[in-house]
Amino acid sequence: MAGNKRGVQLMLLLQLWTGVLTIAVLSLDEGLLTLKPQVQPPVDIPNPDPPVRRDVYYNGKIFDITHLIYPGMPKWGVPDGMGQVVTVTESMKNGSDCYVSEMKLPSHTGTHVDAPSHFFEEYYEKGYDTSTLNLKTLNGPALVVDVPRNSNITELANSPRNRSCSFRTLNTDRKLMHQSEFHSDYVGIMKDGAEWIVDNTNIKLVGIDYLSIASYNDAVPTHQALLRSRKIVVVEGLNLDKVTAGIYDLHCLPIRVLGAEGTPTRCILMS
Amino acid sequence: MAGNKRGVQLMLLLQLWTGVLTIAVLSLDEGLLTLKPQVQPPVDIPNPDPPVRRDVYYNGKIFDITHLIYPGMPKWGVPDGMGQVVTVTESMKNGSDCYVSEMKLPSHTGTHVDAPSHFFEEYYEKGYDTSTLNLKTLNGPALVVDVPRNSNITELANSPRNRSCSFRTLNTDRKLMHQSEFHSDYVGIMKDGAEWIVDNTNIKLVGIDYLSIASYNDAVPTHQALLRSRKIVVVEGLNLDKVTAGIYDLHCLPIRVLGAEGTPTRCILMS
Repeated sequence: MAGNKRGVQLMLLLQLWTGVLTIAVLSLDEGLLTLKPQVQPPVDIPNPDPPVRRDVYYNGKIFDITHLIYPGMPKWGVPDGMGQVVTVTESMKNGSDCYVSEMKLPSHTGTHVDAPSHFFEEYYEKGYDTSTLNLKTLNGPALVVDVPRNSNITELANSPRNRSCSFRTLNTDRKLMHQSEFHSDYVGIMKDGAEWIVDNTNIKLVGIDYLSIASYNDAVPTHQALLRSRKIVVVEGLNLDKVTAGIYDLHCLPIRVLGAEGTPTRCILMS
Repeated sequence: MAGNKRGVQLMLLLQLWTGVLTIAVLSLDEGLLTLKPQVQPPVDIPNPDPPVRRDVYYNGKIFDITHLIYPGMPKWGVPDGMGQVVTVTESMKNGSDCYVSEMKLPSHTGTHVDAPSHFFEEYYEKGYDTSTLNLKTLNGPALVVDVPRNSNITELANSPRNRSCSFRTLNTDRKLMHQSEFHSDYVGIMKDGAEWIVDNTNIKLVGIDYLSIASYNDAVPTHQALLRSRKIVVVEGLNLDKVTAGIYDLHCLPIRVLGAEGTPTRCILMS
């Protein structure tokens, strides 16, 4: 059966094409239906256990390297975290059919990507937002490296051949992304390092484990150096707590929003 | 060289471990730095062409099956679309170092996932939000099928063996996701169809090409049937305009938000 898997799949496809499934109804003849309340009998749900939120699936086949967005999550430049993110707008407690909420998200919340429009007025005007970032860059082989913890980092003997490189640093050891207070003494890339990456490597995606790819004092020139070519994607706020250095398949998928110079993203590593 | 790729990668890794890169500085001894303005010389950017937003990358290696979120995007139950999503909070026009914005997103915006907490009070109370959805279900082989356009759909001869199944329907032909006005005469799954899926198939992810997986008149019971087991992920608002029926690798990565019963997601198909 395993050897004929493709055949089974194609057969199934044909069955679905020709087949007949109680799934959808074409109600074109009904025209536009009016909204009406849908009274339903109550559904009996046995008292469920609380859910488990996982960072690692199936012994490391998938690592979720995205930080959970919640009110206590750190936010750039403020001492007391994100604050309220989700607001309930319809509640079953008030007789609604279902729960519905809305989210207020600063564009650079938690694990997120930066667009060229973040630091360049010209790119902002032309619309180089995060929805223009290359999905090929955001999905593919990726290197995770450990940055030495006990010294400054000065130069690299050889240029990385990897197009995607994410740095696990002292930020992870210090659990900075797990503290509501913003810490400006995080580890980031300095201006010289950014220029070196652009001039000497093939890196097209660069990630880091705190809210900014750039060291605090070089925030502007480092971002400018990385984003200027519009070919490098910057991923910030990665959760590398459970990951060891090595090569993985990265899938980093920011939500697709027109006009945003930064966008929350979900990122996973597969091995 | 190709044969020794892994060796090169490991060597590179070692170089990065022992190596010394002008990338980050550990400024622990400086303590918490005070915020200060960073005056930079202007950067000369030649007038760039407008960006190209793509649904298909590299001749179909990657399909972006996510609809762009923008003010004219349709929104459940309203005649005039989403309205403003992104608000600029810091602008370089006003002297800021960079552009920063925030987003207001209804939880079921555009291409999004539903959690069990959407339609069950018990699950809402226990925290079965979208951040509890299984990433294994959301990342893996996936079937895209065409639903017959010119008749009702009644029953299926064989149960699909695929764990992930997305339906391309008349909604795509009618370009409903490209119209600001909400259309309640979209194609969706009826209560019987949902129960049939749960009872007769291995489907753990079910996707569709308009704002709801459920037909308009069966909105509550269809969602209840699909979400009750907490093992099926519902993906709504898929963009299947450019995709043909077949087997792909799906990566569907909703942002990781505590407490949301629905979450915008980015979804791609790889082939």
